[in-house]
Amino acid sequence: MQEAADSGKISGNGMFTKKCQNWFEKSYGFGKCLLTTSCTDALEMAAILLDIQPGDEVILPSYTFVSTANAFALRGAKLIFADSRKDHPGMDESSIEALISSKTKAIVPVHYAGVACDMDLIMDIANKYGLFVVEDAAQAIDSFYIGRDKKKRALGSMGHLAAFSFHETKNIISGEGGMLVINDMQFAHRAEIIWEKGTNRSSFFRGEVDKYGWVDIGSSFLPSEIISAFLWSQLENIQDIQVRRKSIWNKYYSTLIPIIGEYGIKMPFIPKHATNNAHMFYLLAKDKNQRDEIIDFLKSLEIHVVFHYLSLHKSPYYADKYDGNDLPNTDFYSQSLIRLPLYYELDEESQERVINSIITFFG
Amino acid sequence: MQEAADSGKISGNGMFTKKCQNWFEKSYGFGKCLLTTSCTDALEMAAILLDIQPGDEVILPSYTFVSTANAFALRGAKLIFADSRKDHPGMDESSIEALISSKTKAIVPVHYAGVACDMDLIMDIANKYGLFVVEDAAQAIDSFYIGRDKKKRALGSMGHLAAFSFHETKNIISGEGGMLVINDMQFAHRAEIIWEKGTNRSSFFRGEVDKYGWVDIGSSFLPSEIISAFLWSQLENIQDIQVRRKSIWNKYYSTLIPIIGEYGIKMPFIPKHATNNAHMFYLLAKDKNQRDEIIDFLKSLEIHVVFHYLSLHKSPYYADKYDGNDLPNTDFYSQSLIRLPLYYELDEESQERVINSIITFFG
Repeated sequence: MQEAADSGKISGNGMFTKKCQNWFEKSYGFGKCLLTTSCTDALEMAAILLDIQPGDEVILPSYTFVSTANAFALRGAKLIFADSRKDHPGMDESSIEALISSKTKAIVPVHYAGVACDMDLIMDIANKYGLFVVEDAAQAIDSFYIGRDKKKRALGSMGHLAAFSFHETKNIISGEGGMLVINDMQFAHRAEIIWEKGTNRSSFFRGEVDKYGWVDIGSSFLPSEIISAFLWSQLENIQDIQVRRKSIWNKYYSTLIPIIGEYGIKMPFIPKHATNNAHMFYLLAKDKNQRDEIIDFLKSLEIHVVFHYLSLHKSPYYADKYDGNDLPNTDFYSQSLIRLPLYYELDEESQERVINSIITFFG
Repeated sequence: MQEAADSGKISGNGMFTKKCQNWFEKSYGFGKCLLTTSCTDALEMAAILLDIQPGDEVILPSYTFVSTANAFALRGAKLIFADSRKDHPGMDESSIEALISSKTKAIVPVHYAGVACDMDLIMDIANKYGLFVVEDAAQAIDSFYIGRDKKKRALGSMGHLAAFSFHETKNIISGEGGMLVINDMQFAHRAEIIWEKGTNRSSFFRGEVDKYGWVDIGSSFLPSEIISAFLWSQLENIQDIQVRRKSIWNKYYSTLIPIIGEYGIKMPFIPKHATNNAHMFYLLAKDKNQRDEIIDFLKSLEIHVVFHYLSLHKSPYYADKYDGNDLPNTDFYSQSLIRLPLYYELDEESQERVINSIITFFG
């Protein structure tokens, strides 16, 4: 950050932005990468790029952060919510096809907890119906999908577009921050324009045009170089960060599984087609009562655990606009999921305190 | 920034964000202030708050940065472009009333170069027709309007809403960054929701609701605490920054005015109702040819001066949507304005080189 400030160039699209973008493109087989001020903003860019118009339908899970939905709602889309899987909070891929209508424009799978949706299935459906796929990979950095061909592909490299988050709650952080990945190159040129406030400034600096002006809608999606410099220092340490997070995750799993399984508590499930990037460790209580009791008990010991998300199809904003089916799995996760503390700085002693407190709760 | 990083809280709406917001509210008599990732984003928040719908009309100058227009275009507004004043690039206040129709929703005056538009006139018109006023105060930090009552009021404190920029080209900077000011308190509660991704998270943290969820459209408009910390360090030095900028501005003015006036070159004009925040020093060439000759000559001496803006009503994006009158003053500034280097770090020797080079050009 000092280097960025000293350079005198701290507005967007400078050296650190380019270093980060190049690193992502090379490390994960992504198409064109553009850093943004948030994952929300990357999703908004995706909605603009897909030219979402009022009345267009977008299929997405109900069990997700509001930004997945908001980005498309801002363009006037009708949101078609899919249920979660029985075995995992991610969207039930088998339910997608029945939700498609003549107005469907895109499918937005969310790789919940960094665990891959079944992308072969989703891309097959998208290709069959001529739909676009935007991967919401907010939590999915450094995580992979293992396809039918047994090949490992990075999450965010398979959809036409993908969005990542570097919010401070993520594995790789810059406070607030995000990234749009453009894998379908038909969107690359326009993405640059939308990113630069609807101007052809990028073409201007490459010498392709002799002045730049207003050529399209757009916004200021670029992060400051200070943010990109912070992110770069994280990328330089990604191996170390991931080793530590996986160690914390594995310790939760191995110590808790023999004890709490018998009380009806479920542990995270990783499908065979997915790797684990140790973004999140969660427990699934039997029901809301048990979930609240566990949270209250831990809170009394000053251990801060959280639940999320409220089902979007039942939210104050969307409930009266939603005309679809019940989504029982979404509601279940909404009422029973508990996130345990998982961050790089969590030391062994603190983690053991969390584990022992949970064991104490179950007597 | 170190303090922010050490605190472990680098996502938005933390201590530094609040410190900056409080400082602005107290220092300039602003209503509620919310930092944003850019002035563009603050303008987008304004457009959402005013509930701009497709077909609504918004009156704004054509001689402005694209973001003034884009923020409203994104919500489907029809843009009604006003001409610049004969004596100043700011919008001609006397032309506004004729542009009002039954569909007009808002007037967006831009305080070009930090020089106030005549806000008494504009607010009178707005009140007469029941319109909202959004001050685009991107360049206008620490600048004032002197009203009919002889009182000095800070730019950004008079419109229903106002937007500031802290882009690195501005007086007070954070790389990329901005702020929305809410002076009409009917918008305060919803502004907080839109800022926080359409959720009532702020109410939740104040204990007003027991959980937070999706209640409205919105985006992630909050800057990282790292950005807010950078901005805070700028605010701590605002006096020093402004003294230096005004000294540079005055030196340009006093040394150039006796020499180049006779060659038909005009200098910045500050109306009696405005103060000068030394955001920008510009020359007005007689025409495009002379402007280009001056720029080329200075470029040959490795002095970087720039022109702007291309008239928005003639832009590739909007030309075929524009059905209004010719805007001759806008076109004049578009073809004749030259910005001279003006930044805090510009030392005396470098400034003298710029001045002497301009004098040399005129023989």
